Amino acid sequence: MNISIIGVGLLGGSFALAVREKYPKARFIGVDASSVNGRLALAKGIVDEVKPLQEAVPLSDLVVLATPVNVILDLLEPVLDLLPADGTVTDLGSTKGLICERADAHPKRARFVAAHPMAGTENSGPGAAFRDLLPTKNLIICDREKSHPDSLKLVEALFLDIGMKIFYMTPKEHDLHLAYVSHLSHISSFALGLTVLEKEKDEQAIFDMASTGFSSTVRLAKSSPQMWAPIFDQNRANVSQALGDYIELLQEFKRVIDGQDLHSSLHFMARANDIRRVLEGIERK
Amino acid sequence: MNISIIGVGLLGGSFALAVREKYPKARFIGVDASSVNGRLALAKGIVDEVKPLQEAVPLSDLVVLATPVNVILDLLEPVLDLLPADGTVTDLGSTKGLICERADAHPKRARFVAAHPMAGTENSGPGAAFRDLLPTKNLIICDREKSHPDSLKLVEALFLDIGMKIFYMTPKEHDLHLAYVSHLSHISSFALGLTVLEKEKDEQAIFDMASTGFSSTVRLAKSSPQMWAPIFDQNRANVSQALGDYIELLQEFKRVIDGQDLHSSLHFMARANDIRRVLEGIERK
Repeated sequence: MNISIIGVGLLGGSFALAVREKYPKARFIGVDASSVNGRLALAKGIVDEVKPLQEAVPLSDLVVLATPVNVILDLLEPVLDLLPADGTVTDLGSTKGLICERADAHPKRARFVAAHPMAGTENSGPGAAFRDLLPTKNLIICDREKSHPDSLKLVEALFLDIGMKIFYMTPKEHDLHLAYVSHLSHISSFALGLTVLEKEKDEQAIFDMASTGFSSTVRLAKSSPQMWAPIFDQNRANVSQALGDYIELLQEFKRVIDGQDLHSSLHFMARANDIRRVLEGIERK
Repeated sequence: MNISIIGVGLLGGSFALAVREKYPKARFIGVDASSVNGRLALAKGIVDEVKPLQEAVPLSDLVVLATPVNVILDLLEPVLDLLPADGTVTDLGSTKGLICERADAHPKRARFVAAHPMAGTENSGPGAAFRDLLPTKNLIICDREKSHPDSLKLVEALFLDIGMKIFYMTPKEHDLHLAYVSHLSHISSFALGLTVLEKEKDEQAIFDMASTGFSSTVRLAKSSPQMWAPIFDQNRANVSQALGDYIELLQEFKRVIDGQDLHSSLHFMARANDIRRVLEGIERK
């Protein structure tokens, strides 16, 4: 089986490292706009060779689109065009609405399986990839009924074999939930990092006074702008709604603090404490 | 040496556990409004005995105020009143302005050392206390020149001996910096947890779709309301300013997303990325 990884970064690279172990006979072809990334991926054993997209896709049983979501959108059509008749394309993008819409317009729609693994770190590039990023995590597949049974079976088997759990939903549901559960976390963290950096011109002060709590809350502010700007853009209706809800709650809490309303302050935080139950489930996973 | 710990929770308990190891001859007396906490602290070996405040303080060489900051404010006067002439009182509170002001009004001001360890977790109570919470972390001492040299020496020696690094500043500087570097992180996390809980009535959806990124950003939303409400209240001028700055940046970013301004979106996040340098320093500590 030939598998092409388009974008040998954190997600594409981690996918390849996990799958290689379960499918030692599979051959991995790397495609990357950056030749440095291509060489890094070869050196790290992520792929067996690096080829241009036009050469790699026609040789592939499976093509994995693992670039930023704007590039997935641009590549979907040419990749489906170049794909062998019985080949399969899947993607690892954090948005699903526009990508699925773009796929729907293609005559080879059935060869595409829209996927999104619920996993990542604040780091990027092949150097950040590691074998255990995806195993044990959840995968969402959208519009499964639009995929050919053979393509769906191949993609499901690969993800299940590396130890992921699969959930199914529509692209619309996916994008709405993700705006709250993932995209908003990133924005809250980017803005927090920037607020502190703008106030504390003297970095030593942050350094001396920050504790692990700050470090944890602001970790996602290290994430790649090239990856996140197109996600926020493609999902902007939902992200804008989520961000609006968040700003409203912050304004409410600011009024509570300004008004010295200790009772409401306690109540606000007690309601938020409920997240403990949910998090304990996530951390047990 | 007799050391009374008023409030045998996360911080008071962790302090006692670390100091016991270095000062095996010290005798620890626990004081807690909750008799359950008192029994837990005894069972866990945090303290050697539990006494009412009125009995414990007159026996003490050192009294450590480790309650929520509103209770520290209430106890400071009676504790200084009850303290032996050569005794010392210190506190572990996350605000310093009002506490130092209250101390300044007391004839035994010089026996007080205002301290704040930059350490904590989202958990509370004696069950959450652990020996390694404070060692390697930073401690801020405020208004050192107002403390008697003997009291200052005793408190500094204890904190240095358990492996902390000491920094000095005014209460005003402390409260301003902490609003940005600690208090704001907690508010951003409480509000994020609540935004998601209010939208996602179905907890299973959060559970299935949240990744470690969400979990890390929202961890502080588990923190104790009883501890944080009085911190936000005592430091409300600075917290309100920090929260206002944060809301403004979020509104700016929302406009950028709504306006599909990808260039500004990239720029906003690239500026926030600068926090990586600071965090790497913190994580190396």
